Amino acid sequence: VTISDLGEFGFIEAIAAELPRSDRTVVGIGDDAAVLTAPDSRVVATTDLLVEGRHFRRDWSSAADIGAKAAAQNLADVAAMGAVPVALLVGFAAPGDLAVAWARELVTGIAAECARAGATIAGGDVSGAGSVVLAVTALGDLAGRDPVTRAGAQPGDVLAYAGVLGESAAGLALLEAGLPRPASLIAAHRRPAPPYHAGPEAAALGATAMIDVSDGLLADCGHLARASRVQVDIDTGRFPGDPALAAAAAALGRPGALDWVLTGGEDHALAATFPADRELPGYWTVIGQVRKGQGVLVNGTAATGRAGWNHFGD
Amino acid sequence: VTISDLGEFGFIEAIAAELPRSDRTVVGIGDDAAVLTAPDSRVVATTDLLVEGRHFRRDWSSAADIGAKAAAQNLADVAAMGAVPVALLVGFAAPGDLAVAWARELVTGIAAECARAGATIAGGDVSGAGSVVLAVTALGDLAGRDPVTRAGAQPGDVLAYAGVLGESAAGLALLEAGLPRPASLIAAHRRPAPPYHAGPEAAALGATAMIDVSDGLLADCGHLARASRVQVDIDTGRFPGDPALAAAAAALGRPGALDWVLTGGEDHALAATFPADRELPGYWTVIGQVRKGQGVLVNGTAATGRAGWNHFGD
Repeated sequence: VTISDLGEFGFIEAIAAELPRSDRTVVGIGDDAAVLTAPDSRVVATTDLLVEGRHFRRDWSSAADIGAKAAAQNLADVAAMGAVPVALLVGFAAPGDLAVAWARELVTGIAAECARAGATIAGGDVSGAGSVVLAVTALGDLAGRDPVTRAGAQPGDVLAYAGVLGESAAGLALLEAGLPRPASLIAAHRRPAPPYHAGPEAAALGATAMIDVSDGLLADCGHLARASRVQVDIDTGRFPGDPALAAAAAALGRPGALDWVLTGGEDHALAATFPADRELPGYWTVIGQVRKGQGVLVNGTAATGRAGWNHFGD
Repeated sequence: VTISDLGEFGFIEAIAAELPRSDRTVVGIGDDAAVLTAPDSRVVATTDLLVEGRHFRRDWSSAADIGAKAAAQNLADVAAMGAVPVALLVGFAAPGDLAVAWARELVTGIAAECARAGATIAGGDVSGAGSVVLAVTALGDLAGRDPVTRAGAQPGDVLAYAGVLGESAAGLALLEAGLPRPASLIAAHRRPAPPYHAGPEAAALGATAMIDVSDGLLADCGHLARASRVQVDIDTGRFPGDPALAAAAAALGRPGALDWVLTGGEDHALAATFPADRELPGYWTVIGQVRKGQGVLVNGTAATGRAGWNHFGD
């Protein structure tokens, strides 16, 4: 059965019937628009487009993984503001001959990641297209706290991250080389697991700035440093060893894994700055300092080259 | 200059610098997510995907018109809930060799339609793709009123519409036939003008159900009738004569324009049901009755065929 067989309305009905509904949903799927509660009179909103062949490949990832990843990258953006994800709107364009089973599995993956973040699917749109395109919008709730932007880092703050770094990039490198192990890295590439809870908790802990690491740690710290008009110095000695990354580097004949950690995107870790005296829960790892100045340093030296990192072979 | 020349970040910066910012925007373009005010502790949200070659053609419409139309269809969905449009998030995918000038004009069109509706662009995303794809999400404010869904129509209510019907479809027919006149219809196809104000005003007037007419009046009244579990009977004698539509029908050798009025989408008129005793402002035209039963009738007869209309030659 293809999407064309069901038609737009039949397809939406079939999908919507299976989705959970949240008590934050005033009006859900099936009307002109959704209506959601916004208890503190503000709403966090972010949108991303994912294009087949650029952001995902149907031969490398299952439909459920593609859906989960699309959801994750948007939900992580909400968390990176210090907010709790509440709802997704999902735009889905696909060739008419796409199997409904594939699309159902995609939605299952989106819904599963939503559930992990405490959100639900509240609406969407379906269209024909030559290839699969996903447009995901996430909405979130700041629960009365100020949003944590990229712009508040202060000289003297520490830089910390929560989640994992480099695993998705390593997994992609393994896939590209046709290597099946470490399987945990391939899984991390197919389905990242952002630490959603860490976002609002960072806000409550007094984070001064925060960003979702989607372009790579150096690039995203560069965005943060620029927005905050500060310099960020990353101390690579602070990164915990990751045996899976080391194994992948060895399997691929690379000198080490630091390159993935510093420049790999798509893990959707959160990077945040905190006042230096703040006691942080164990899932935050302090990896650097904020100083007067500009740009991103690695171990005190200006990082250069792609994404500000010179790929000097780890 | 192409989008690839500027890169994603350069492109976004160039665009964002020109956009107006609303006092409803707590955090605007350039962070992980936008933050907007939601004064009555609810937010209306809707999303649509527009795919080149399916929803628009670059050779038939200017970039500004494509942008305005993409914005209009989402803003109209917000208005159809009885809400005031507040903000758009715009996902934009395009080939890297697309001229920045085209993309700028697109955004100018989106921003102009936002201004018409009282909204602003608060965020977005940019991606590469083989063809142009727009993913527009609109957010709105119910201003303390209940949302007007599709499901509240009651037997005894009247059916009314605000805006125009059939002009976009007639304009498309003229374009397809290579006819330049009536120019107002071609303009209506390129850039519909939904009556945004009529949505919240209908809510204040006690509308029992409302829908954005995007699939055609018969089809959308069918959605409303089904959601409300009622029957809608449209009296075609109530439609005001439209000289431009009559001229287009004559130019195309068609017996009349009623087919466009009943089945043409994309004008984004609003159709709503009201208690029969309600005095309606002049921009609402009563065109039918709500009764017990199901489905849509035209002049008391069950409409059949495409979109519930048998195209019996007007």
